[in-house]
Amino acid sequence: MLHVAILTIGDELTGGRIQDTNTSFIARACGREGWKLAASMAVGDDEGAIKKALDYLLTLADAVVVTGGLGPTADDITTESIAKAFGLPLIANDEVLAYIKTIFVNYNLVWTDNNAKQAVFPAGAEIIPNPGGTAAGFALHVGGKVIAVIPGVPREAERMFPEGVVPLFKRAFPEAGLPVHTRTIKIFGVPEAKADELLADIDRKKEGVEIGFYPRFPEIHLVLSCRTESASDAKQKLGHVEAIIEGRLSEFIFAYDDETMEGTVAAGLTDRGLTIAVAESCTGGLICDRLTDVPGSSGFLERGFVTYSNAAKTELLGVPQETLEEHGAVSEPTARLMAEGARKNAGTDLGLSVTGIAGPTGGSAAKPVGTVFIALADKKGTSCRNYSFRWDRRRIKQISAQAALLMVRRYLRGGMESV
Amino acid sequence: MLHVAILTIGDELTGGRIQDTNTSFIARACGREGWKLAASMAVGDDEGAIKKALDYLLTLADAVVVTGGLGPTADDITTESIAKAFGLPLIANDEVLAYIKTIFVNYNLVWTDNNAKQAVFPAGAEIIPNPGGTAAGFALHVGGKVIAVIPGVPREAERMFPEGVVPLFKRAFPEAGLPVHTRTIKIFGVPEAKADELLADIDRKKEGVEIGFYPRFPEIHLVLSCRTESASDAKQKLGHVEAIIEGRLSEFIFAYDDETMEGTVAAGLTDRGLTIAVAESCTGGLICDRLTDVPGSSGFLERGFVTYSNAAKTELLGVPQETLEEHGAVSEPTARLMAEGARKNAGTDLGLSVTGIAGPTGGSAAKPVGTVFIALADKKGTSCRNYSFRWDRRRIKQISAQAALLMVRRYLRGGMESV
Repeated sequence: MLHVAILTIGDELTGGRIQDTNTSFIARACGREGWKLAASMAVGDDEGAIKKALDYLLTLADAVVVTGGLGPTADDITTESIAKAFGLPLIANDEVLAYIKTIFVNYNLVWTDNNAKQAVFPAGAEIIPNPGGTAAGFALHVGGKVIAVIPGVPREAERMFPEGVVPLFKRAFPEAGLPVHTRTIKIFGVPEAKADELLADIDRKKEGVEIGFYPRFPEIHLVLSCRTESASDAKQKLGHVEAIIEGRLSEFIFAYDDETMEGTVAAGLTDRGLTIAVAESCTGGLICDRLTDVPGSSGFLERGFVTYSNAAKTELLGVPQETLEEHGAVSEPTARLMAEGARKNAGTDLGLSVTGIAGPTGGSAAKPVGTVFIALADKKGTSCRNYSFRWDRRRIKQISAQAALLMVRRYLRGGMESV
Repeated sequence: MLHVAILTIGDELTGGRIQDTNTSFIARACGREGWKLAASMAVGDDEGAIKKALDYLLTLADAVVVTGGLGPTADDITTESIAKAFGLPLIANDEVLAYIKTIFVNYNLVWTDNNAKQAVFPAGAEIIPNPGGTAAGFALHVGGKVIAVIPGVPREAERMFPEGVVPLFKRAFPEAGLPVHTRTIKIFGVPEAKADELLADIDRKKEGVEIGFYPRFPEIHLVLSCRTESASDAKQKLGHVEAIIEGRLSEFIFAYDDETMEGTVAAGLTDRGLTIAVAESCTGGLICDRLTDVPGSSGFLERGFVTYSNAAKTELLGVPQETLEEHGAVSEPTARLMAEGARKNAGTDLGLSVTGIAGPTGGSAAKPVGTVFIALADKKGTSCRNYSFRWDRRRIKQISAQAALLMVRRYLRGGMESV
């Protein structure tokens, strides 16, 4: 299997001023090719650090992708540092120089001689064209290994890596390994350790499938992966393990692969031609924010009410003052009436409501911070669930919004009995 | 000067499935302490790779921060790998075990034996407490150098690094350099290159103050830093540069240091005893979500309306159907009437509204995707501003919410004339 390492170069990265996105992008692209990322490293614009890092990465990997430091200014020293590290002279490339000069003419830029620096490469380098800028990349073959150097500008790197570097690695390493096939199962409502335990007996070796756990609060993503030449073989193996997991975690599964919770809820509402109104107290608009992240949400989200005050609950949703006084704003009767009022006043098929105590204050012995009631109403009736979350304010909002969306998802699959 | 290296561990990072934010966060925190980041590296959950990486990083740095792989599942192997790398036996820590069990009891979680793994550490390790989770960190002192290990969960790492690791490094390296004093100025509404140009002539050397630009969409944070033993000297120098920046960028500045946009708006409303109602169309609840992230928001946020449909705009906010037909839902007249209707129907001092086209569809030649109207009403009148944002759906929502909150902030400082 091909082992790849990534070296990003730039003081702006090591100083934390700019968040590197190239590493994650290149790592994903390598994953799709079935290549293993051996290491990634960021160093400053420093000749010694660049040499040391390359020496080390070449002990770990067959191929190293270097990004950054190919600009025309004095602090861009990647090309000379790499040439020096391997004892290679720098040689001007006339073809690249002519191309750069064309760009200057076409874009009406004023030529200054420092730009000629971008047409100089270590002897023996293979040029990697840059269709989107003046900084061409290059590759060196050193002792059976390959170093590919591309600019740090994400827009340029994201084009040059698949178009220039990937084919180059495939030519250099014909044995570059089997492709990897993956299937992601997204779960919510079960702790990671518990899910892990429920799947512990699945024999990864025998099944030919790896299972990875990737927590993304408040969700956990299970990534099944399988290495094989045959797509149908992968489908069969992944499908087998997926079926086992579905048998054990079905109540917690809410989406697959690139689907999101709000996306599946949106798709379900759209498919069934249902509309919804949302009444939010402690989530403060977060449920509507998530639903409106889905393009086309105006087709199903009629309106939302952020009923933070009691007056708003009464005036907009018709929750009687007596209910609020007798049971409190955070109570099952209030949650039910909020959902019913949202549905009725908006004239929608469904009404969803959340009322709770996000903290840090406002809790009591009977209703501590984290007490949340979530209700869903349709024309036939209303269901309500009661939760006790133990997180900070922001996370109580996040997990409550997630639980509310899950309630709608369950309804869309199994009706009010499944909520 | 103290040289620090960062090692992030996890297949989810090297596989590109999760974007690492810890490296950038830790690099920034080191920068604030005046420490130099020697290198950062990511490796998978692989014993050999972890050992190799540590060996290499210890040749570059005095201190290594390791994040990730401290979970209870079988693929979390950081602790054992580090113990093995330095030939140390693993020893259970009863105090940590008791703490983890307390968390399980308090949060009503079901104990499974794999969780005991999180209470095992290499012999001689100093425990770094985790106030927010079950994964305690630890530090090892090896040959005059220090390795500090904390969880990869950003929420936990972001608390444990300043509270646990920074003091530990300072104890281990008393020579860690002069203290660095910083002042952060948060700006919005001006491109980074333009802000940089406006501040280019400030002589950093002469002033004894560095100026760093940290873009965090849709904000830019300017971090002024000054190295000196004397707090009063730092205050004087930082104050001098801050005054220059305020003279040039005042209209774009919305917060300092740890303040947030929603926090300053909340504080302003609370101080003045003003209440607000928010009517959101294209932001879909995001403004209310941000305002309700501030504890005590029930004191000023009376209610919010997510008026996605025209019917909702008419019924909840009193926008006449004729206005919607004549000018459209995305128009200045509609935005003004939304703000006025929100204020009137909620009985609040202020009404804030946003209506726009978040895309990807719904745009036209006259009103392309990114057209947004924001209005603010008080008892005397209404102001409206018109924006053309060029981003994707999520970013149009984010920048619109930010612009709306900035409008409230300007009002709180200078009245309706400043909006």
